Amino acid sequence: MDRDNILLTPGPLTTTLRTKLAMLKDWGSWDADFNALSAEVCAGLLDVIHAMDSHVVVPLQGSGTFSVEAAVATIVPRGGHLLVLDNGAYCKRMGKLATLMGRRTTIASRAEDEPVSAAALERQLRDDPSITHVGFIHCETGTGVLNPLAEVAEVCERLGRGLIVDAMSSFAALPIDAREVRFDALIAASGKCLEGVPGMGFVFIRKQVLAGCEGNSHSLAMDLHDQHSYMQRTGQWRFTPPTHVVAALAEALRQFAEEGGQPARLTRYQGNCDTLLQGLQALGLQTFLEPELVTPIIVTVMAPDHAGYDFKRLYASAKSQGFLLYPGKLTEVETFRVGCIGAIGQKEMQQAVDAIGRALQGLVAERRLA
Amino acid sequence: MDRDNILLTPGPLTTTLRTKLAMLKDWGSWDADFNALSAEVCAGLLDVIHAMDSHVVVPLQGSGTFSVEAAVATIVPRGGHLLVLDNGAYCKRMGKLATLMGRRTTIASRAEDEPVSAAALERQLRDDPSITHVGFIHCETGTGVLNPLAEVAEVCERLGRGLIVDAMSSFAALPIDAREVRFDALIAASGKCLEGVPGMGFVFIRKQVLAGCEGNSHSLAMDLHDQHSYMQRTGQWRFTPPTHVVAALAEALRQFAEEGGQPARLTRYQGNCDTLLQGLQALGLQTFLEPELVTPIIVTVMAPDHAGYDFKRLYASAKSQGFLLYPGKLTEVETFRVGCIGAIGQKEMQQAVDAIGRALQGLVAERRLA
Repeated sequence: MDRDNILLTPGPLTTTLRTKLAMLKDWGSWDADFNALSAEVCAGLLDVIHAMDSHVVVPLQGSGTFSVEAAVATIVPRGGHLLVLDNGAYCKRMGKLATLMGRRTTIASRAEDEPVSAAALERQLRDDPSITHVGFIHCETGTGVLNPLAEVAEVCERLGRGLIVDAMSSFAALPIDAREVRFDALIAASGKCLEGVPGMGFVFIRKQVLAGCEGNSHSLAMDLHDQHSYMQRTGQWRFTPPTHVVAALAEALRQFAEEGGQPARLTRYQGNCDTLLQGLQALGLQTFLEPELVTPIIVTVMAPDHAGYDFKRLYASAKSQGFLLYPGKLTEVETFRVGCIGAIGQKEMQQAVDAIGRALQGLVAERRLA
Repeated sequence: MDRDNILLTPGPLTTTLRTKLAMLKDWGSWDADFNALSAEVCAGLLDVIHAMDSHVVVPLQGSGTFSVEAAVATIVPRGGHLLVLDNGAYCKRMGKLATLMGRRTTIASRAEDEPVSAAALERQLRDDPSITHVGFIHCETGTGVLNPLAEVAEVCERLGRGLIVDAMSSFAALPIDAREVRFDALIAASGKCLEGVPGMGFVFIRKQVLAGCEGNSHSLAMDLHDQHSYMQRTGQWRFTPPTHVVAALAEALRQFAEEGGQPARLTRYQGNCDTLLQGLQALGLQTFLEPELVTPIIVTVMAPDHAGYDFKRLYASAKSQGFLLYPGKLTEVETFRVGCIGAIGQKEMQQAVDAIGRALQGLVAERRLA
């Protein structure tokens, strides 16, 4: 009766009971035991993308967007110029927060159903030498489209520009190797593919650029250079950390390692995604992206083309069967989204597909009766 | 064997098991059930200070300092001038974050062992008509000194200046009544006297000033006007909320009401404080503040005047007995701090006093042997 609903959302998502149980303890934020926990989390995060030699990682209180804002504030100097490669809602958000904080910002927009282009970026960077940094979303959660990280990083490195990567929804699921791909900053958060609970983000900052970041930030709370210096000096967070969220993330990272790290997680999510796609096809539903562009993180589904369809009623019916879907985020096309991530497997995804099918049948039947 | 240590710290602090158990569920941040939980929390917060008619409350991800920064960013216009009444570390922090975000800021400093003065404030406001807002810390956690909220608010109202109150460590324990005391913004956080877990703050904003705050913020994440408008429109947080922290706060607020609200909480904390002060006196220890200035939130204790004293060893010994103390935050005087807040009563405080006594005896004995 009181079994929790399964979240088919891009974070917060379903976490394991073991992760949640780690929150049943109060930690002193000044205490050595908690410092050790923070250090364990940071070491685990660096491990995920093999960044121990090249980067530091700086945790930050708040949602993932807070960490994106902090990364831009800390990395881009006040006289810098940020070019944001835009193919979706989260790209636009990065552009907005950079503009608001007073950084010169240019938005290069593309259609939402295709990846950004490294070749176009190269032309733009050659045309405008004033651009100092490129802002890039790895997997744009608005649609689920995957953008070409390696190619974009190569262009930025060759042309001597900084790169800020929002890897919020790809981190720990899709392969990222800091030894092979150069970036100045890369951002993710606790409540995504690491399957922790939401409440903190973290930013990898390249060691070579870190010292030059002092004094860039317009914000005390968002100053990652200051956050990092303080942590180096004391082992503690500058301001009160979300202790229970940190404890849950530590427990989630232990399970991530036990599962087999990023490759194993990707395999599980790919299995979830395959089950979902097969199920959608059987239900006569189409994905918004071309099949080869779909990533096993979140799938944007075209709304069924019949008059009885209404997302709110689909949502309510799926929820009554135990599954929380996610609304679309596109302005021009009616869609809904289904997350493939979280502490679920193909069994749960098949149940979800069955529930979506039953929900849609219900909408059609109601329409007929009306 | 695995009984948790008791935190005698000003937050994070010891919470009830019931509060922690509320985190054993994953919530969809878009779901109506979670929206209802957020609305319940906001209504409960407004109730605490009787602000339903006069103020809105805006929750914000991150630590309390994030909310202080957001309040200043949102309330003080870019051409404004903030006067910070300073008698401690948290006052200085408010001055620092206001300066960093580019607001004209003046710091009026006093000694750390005396409250700020409303009479001095009145003179300063009369002397400098350019001051638009006053920044004020209700209970300065650096020392525990209580500042005169009603008197300062009266001066600000009479002279037509805005008032921003950091009530981080007083909210829900000391009486604050928005019907009687006028402020433009008042800030507190989940992990303090409400006895929730850390991870979010909240800011009460006076309805009459809210509309004028649009566009003030230099930061997307810290824009409380935007956060509030979005929540009004959708019932949701703008960016991923710390769902488990919100659920814990909702449960903590229910227990707060059941206990009897602010008066009952103050009575319990006063009992804790009395037990502590009697115990300290019996141990020959003195408080940093004059006894009449001590508040039942956190007590700053003068380090014992013998050569064997060392805070780290005192801390380690108290911890081995099950209690986490808090370091001092004064630069000129050697002190340590003991919190009176959290889900503890006089029984636990007496145990703590006994542990402190045993720890100090141990330090003296070690010194004799050395």
